[in-house]
Amino acid sequence: MQNILFNGEWTESSAPSSTFHAFNPSTKEELTERAFPESNWDEVESLVDAAFTAAQALLDVDSDTIASFLECYAAKIEAATDRLAAVANEETGLPVSPRLAGVEIPRTVNQIRQAAATARSGDWARPTLDNATNIHSMHGPLGGPVVVFGPNNFPFAYNGISGGDFASAIAAGNPVIAKAHPAHPYTTQLLAELAQEAVSETGLPAGTVQLFYGTAPENGLKLVSHSKVAAVGFTGSRPGGLALKEAADKAGTPIYLEMSSVNPVFVMPGALQERGSDIGTELHGSCTLGAGQFCTKPGLVVVQQSSEATALIEQMTESFSQSPAGILLTGGGVKAVSKAVEQLKAAGAKLLAGGKIADTAHFGYEPTLLTVDGSTFLGSPNELQSEAFGAVCLVAVAKDAEEMLAIASTIEGNLTGSIYSDTKGGDDSEYAALSKELRTKVGRLLNDKVPTGVAVCPAMNHGGPYPATGHPGFTAVGFPASVIRFSALHSYDNVRENRLPQALQKKNPTGSLNRLVDGKWTTADA
Amino acid sequence: MQNILFNGEWTESSAPSSTFHAFNPSTKEELTERAFPESNWDEVESLVDAAFTAAQALLDVDSDTIASFLECYAAKIEAATDRLAAVANEETGLPVSPRLAGVEIPRTVNQIRQAAATARSGDWARPTLDNATNIHSMHGPLGGPVVVFGPNNFPFAYNGISGGDFASAIAAGNPVIAKAHPAHPYTTQLLAELAQEAVSETGLPAGTVQLFYGTAPENGLKLVSHSKVAAVGFTGSRPGGLALKEAADKAGTPIYLEMSSVNPVFVMPGALQERGSDIGTELHGSCTLGAGQFCTKPGLVVVQQSSEATALIEQMTESFSQSPAGILLTGGGVKAVSKAVEQLKAAGAKLLAGGKIADTAHFGYEPTLLTVDGSTFLGSPNELQSEAFGAVCLVAVAKDAEEMLAIASTIEGNLTGSIYSDTKGGDDSEYAALSKELRTKVGRLLNDKVPTGVAVCPAMNHGGPYPATGHPGFTAVGFPASVIRFSALHSYDNVRENRLPQALQKKNPTGSLNRLVDGKWTTADA
Repeated sequence: MQNILFNGEWTESSAPSSTFHAFNPSTKEELTERAFPESNWDEVESLVDAAFTAAQALLDVDSDTIASFLECYAAKIEAATDRLAAVANEETGLPVSPRLAGVEIPRTVNQIRQAAATARSGDWARPTLDNATNIHSMHGPLGGPVVVFGPNNFPFAYNGISGGDFASAIAAGNPVIAKAHPAHPYTTQLLAELAQEAVSETGLPAGTVQLFYGTAPENGLKLVSHSKVAAVGFTGSRPGGLALKEAADKAGTPIYLEMSSVNPVFVMPGALQERGSDIGTELHGSCTLGAGQFCTKPGLVVVQQSSEATALIEQMTESFSQSPAGILLTGGGVKAVSKAVEQLKAAGAKLLAGGKIADTAHFGYEPTLLTVDGSTFLGSPNELQSEAFGAVCLVAVAKDAEEMLAIASTIEGNLTGSIYSDTKGGDDSEYAALSKELRTKVGRLLNDKVPTGVAVCPAMNHGGPYPATGHPGFTAVGFPASVIRFSALHSYDNVRENRLPQALQKKNPTGSLNRLVDGKWTTADA
Repeated sequence: MQNILFNGEWTESSAPSSTFHAFNPSTKEELTERAFPESNWDEVESLVDAAFTAAQALLDVDSDTIASFLECYAAKIEAATDRLAAVANEETGLPVSPRLAGVEIPRTVNQIRQAAATARSGDWARPTLDNATNIHSMHGPLGGPVVVFGPNNFPFAYNGISGGDFASAIAAGNPVIAKAHPAHPYTTQLLAELAQEAVSETGLPAGTVQLFYGTAPENGLKLVSHSKVAAVGFTGSRPGGLALKEAADKAGTPIYLEMSSVNPVFVMPGALQERGSDIGTELHGSCTLGAGQFCTKPGLVVVQQSSEATALIEQMTESFSQSPAGILLTGGGVKAVSKAVEQLKAAGAKLLAGGKIADTAHFGYEPTLLTVDGSTFLGSPNELQSEAFGAVCLVAVAKDAEEMLAIASTIEGNLTGSIYSDTKGGDDSEYAALSKELRTKVGRLLNDKVPTGVAVCPAMNHGGPYPATGHPGFTAVGFPASVIRFSALHSYDNVRENRLPQALQKKNPTGSLNRLVDGKWTTADA
C-alpha cells in the first residue's frame, strides 16, 4: 500500500477504510501494482493539525524563502519530466508527446515559476500605506491550511499538489493539504515526493505540503468545514463542488470552485457567410481536443438559421462522424458522457453524429454532435446546458437575431463565451447587444476564437459567475490575481514601524514594489 | 402610510403584510405620525425586476456619469444636514451635535465623494493588458442589483441607501435595493428622496436606487437568493446575518456580512506599569462612546494579574459605575444587552459595575463592567466572547504571559484586536508571539490605541475572518478596496480593440489610470 505524506514524512496509512487502484484508460486495465489508501477521519484530521502548525510557522517565513521553494520544486518537476509523463500517460491515457511532456508539464513548471516570481515581488499583496492616519494594510496568509482537490483531466497543471490552486495558495504563504485525484494517484505521489524534497531543501516547515489519496465523502465534508482549515480549492464536477461548498459555507470557510461550463459559442451570420467552413474546422478541433475533456470545451454552438448554418452543421456532422473516439480518463467518465447525451436528447436535441459508447480497447465515447431548434432550446434552456465532459457539442439553431439574443439571455454562469463575427463590420450592429448579454454571464469573453486554451497571463480570467464557479470576482489561473484568493486582508493601525511587515515600512523593501502610498501607486519610499 | 421608492417613483405599497412605526429612544415613545409598510413578496420581487432592468441599462453608462450621481447625491445630503440630523436624532437618540451633524453626516458625504473619485479614476477595477496574448481584463459590474441591509447604529454612514456598501456597489456600476432599518425609516426615506433626485438629475436608469422598509423574514431569504440578485451587503446581528448567508450561499450569490465582534484589547504588563491609568481612561471612553453601540467597541480586555491590573480594574469599576446610561437605539437592544450580560455571568463572569436596565426615560442599560479569571475564560471561551451591543466590557485576568497567549489563541474572527505595550521596549519579547497569534484572527491589528474610530482611508480594513464577517479578504470601509466586493472579473480574449472598454484600449483614457500592462504597473499607453 502506498504511503501518505504526513507532516514531512512518508507514512503508512493507519487503518484505512479501504484501498483503491488506478486504471489504465488506454486498456481499461486496473493498475494493481499499487494500492492507495482511503484515509479514515482521524488520519485526515492529523493532516489538518500538522498543517495548522505549519501555517503558524509559515507566518515567520519570508516570501523569498517561499519563492525559493516554488523554484526548487519547479526545477525538480522539469528534471523529472520523462518519468512523470510516462506514469501520467499510464494513468490517464493522455499522450506523452506533445500533451504531457511537451505542453502540460512545461505549463505546470511555468505556472509554479510565475507563482514564485509573484511571491518574490510582493505586488500581489497590494501594500497600502496611509501616512496621515498611520494605517497600513496588505494581504497576507490565512493562518491555516488550504485544502486542494484537483480534477481528473490535468494530472499536472491543475493537480492539487502542483497546479494553480496549489501554487497560488503557497505563494500567499499557506500550507496545502492535497487530495490526489483517484484517476492519477501515482502521478500525484511522485509530484508530492518532489515537493517534499523541495520543502526539506529550502527549510520550510514540515507540514507545508501534505498528501492523501482519498477518504469517505462524509470525511471530505468534515475536512472542508474543519475549524482549522482556512480555505478550499476545488476543480471538478458540479455535484461534488456543490456538496463541498455547502459544508464550507456553513463553516464560513472561503471555497473557490470550478464546477462546470458549456462555453457557448455564438456564430453570427456575417461570420458564417465570410468563413463558415474555417469556423466549422475550428469548432470541431476545439470540441475533440483532449477527447473533449476540457473545462473550456465548447459544448453549445448557437447559429441563426440560413443556408450557411445548414452547411456548417453538415460539415460538423461529417467531421464528428469521421473522428475517432479519444481516450476518456475513466470508466465513470464514459457513463457520465453517455448519461449527459441521453439527457440532451430527452430535452429535445436531435442526434447528428456519434451518440454511443465507443467500441474500443480504451475508455471512449464517440464524438457526438446534436442539434436543436431555437424554440426547443428556449423551452428547456437549463437541461440543454448540461455539461457533457467529452467530445459532445450541441448546435442550437435560432430562427433570427432576436431568438439568438433570447438564447444568450438564458445562458447560465460560464467560464467563457465566444462570439464569431464578420471581420468587415457586417455583424457589428448585433454584436453590441449580444456581447452585453454575455458579458456578465461569463468570465472570459472571446472574439473569433475557440475557448479551449487557457493562457497563463495576468489578464486571464479562468473563472466566472455561479454555477461555473462559486464567486465571480476571482480567477483560478494567472498571476498575480489568482494568489489573492488564498489571503486575508491585514490592516495595521498605529502599529510601530519596526513591527510592520517589511512591505509596509517606509523604505520600499525592493525598490520596485508597487505600493499605494497616500492614494498614489508608487515604487518610491513612503 | 409612507411610500416606497419603486423604479424611480414614490409608490404606494400594495397590500402590505403589516405596517410599523419607529420609536423615539429618548422618550420610548412610538412615532405614530408615519406608518411604514412591510412589503409583500410580489412587491419585493417587483423591485428586483426593476433593478435588474436598471442593472442592464447601467452596463452602458460610463463611470463619469456614475461619479456625477454620487457627487450630486453627496452635495444634497450635505445641504440637508440640519433636517436629516434632526430627524435622525428623533429616531435614534444620537445627539445632533457633534455626532450626527458634525461627524456622521460629514463622514457619509466624504465616503460618497471618495466613492465618486474611485469610480472616476477607474483604478479600483485593476485594468490589465497583455499584448502578447491579446487578453485584457478588468473588474466590472455584476449585471444585477445589490441588496443592502444597513444596521441600526449608523443612520447615515452605514445606511443601506447612503453608507459604504451603497456607495461601493454604485461605484462599481450596480443598482442598489436598500432595505431601511426599522429603527430609522424616516431618515432613510429622506435620504432616498435625495438619492432619487440625484438619479433623475444625472440621468441614471429609473431603478438604480430603490427603497423598501421591511418585509417578512422569509421574504428576506427569498430576496437574497433571487436569481436576478447579484450580491448582498449586510451589517447587523450574527443570527440575522447567518440566516441571510445560508440563503445567499445556496443560490451562489456573494454576500458580504459584518456580523459581530468583541474587539479584544490586550494590555501587556509593561504598558500597565508605564501608563495604566491613561489606558483605563481610554478603555472606558471607547466602551461608553455612543452608548457602546459600535461594531468596534472593545468588549474584552485581557491583562495579566498584577497590582497594576488590580488598579486598572478598580479604576474602570469606578468610571463605569459613575457613567450615566447612554441612549440605546431600540427597546429590543436593551433586552439584547441584558440577555448578553446574563450569558456572560452564567459563563462565570463576575459583575463589577452596572448590570441592570437603566431606570431612565430613555432606552438604556447601565454601563457594565465584568471580570473573569483566565482559567475560567479558557473553560468557556466562546460563551465569554458573546457580543453585548452596549457599554459592556469584560476584563479577563490571565495569571501570566502564557495564559494571556492561550486566551489569544481562543479568539474568534474579529474586526479588530489591540495590543498596548511598553513604549520603551519592555514588552517587545512577548509582543511578537501575541501579535502573531492575533494577526490572522482580526482584520485590523492596533497598537496602543482603542479600536473605536474607523478611518475612511485606503489602508483601512473594516472586515476580518468569520464570524466577524463572511470572508477575510474584503473590507467594508475604504476606497478603492471596498468597491471590488461588488464586481465581477471580466476578461476579454482576442476582443477587437474598438469593442474593448476604454480602460482596456491601448491609449490610457485619462493619462493617469494605473494599469498592469505586460506585467508592469504603468500609466503609459499600452
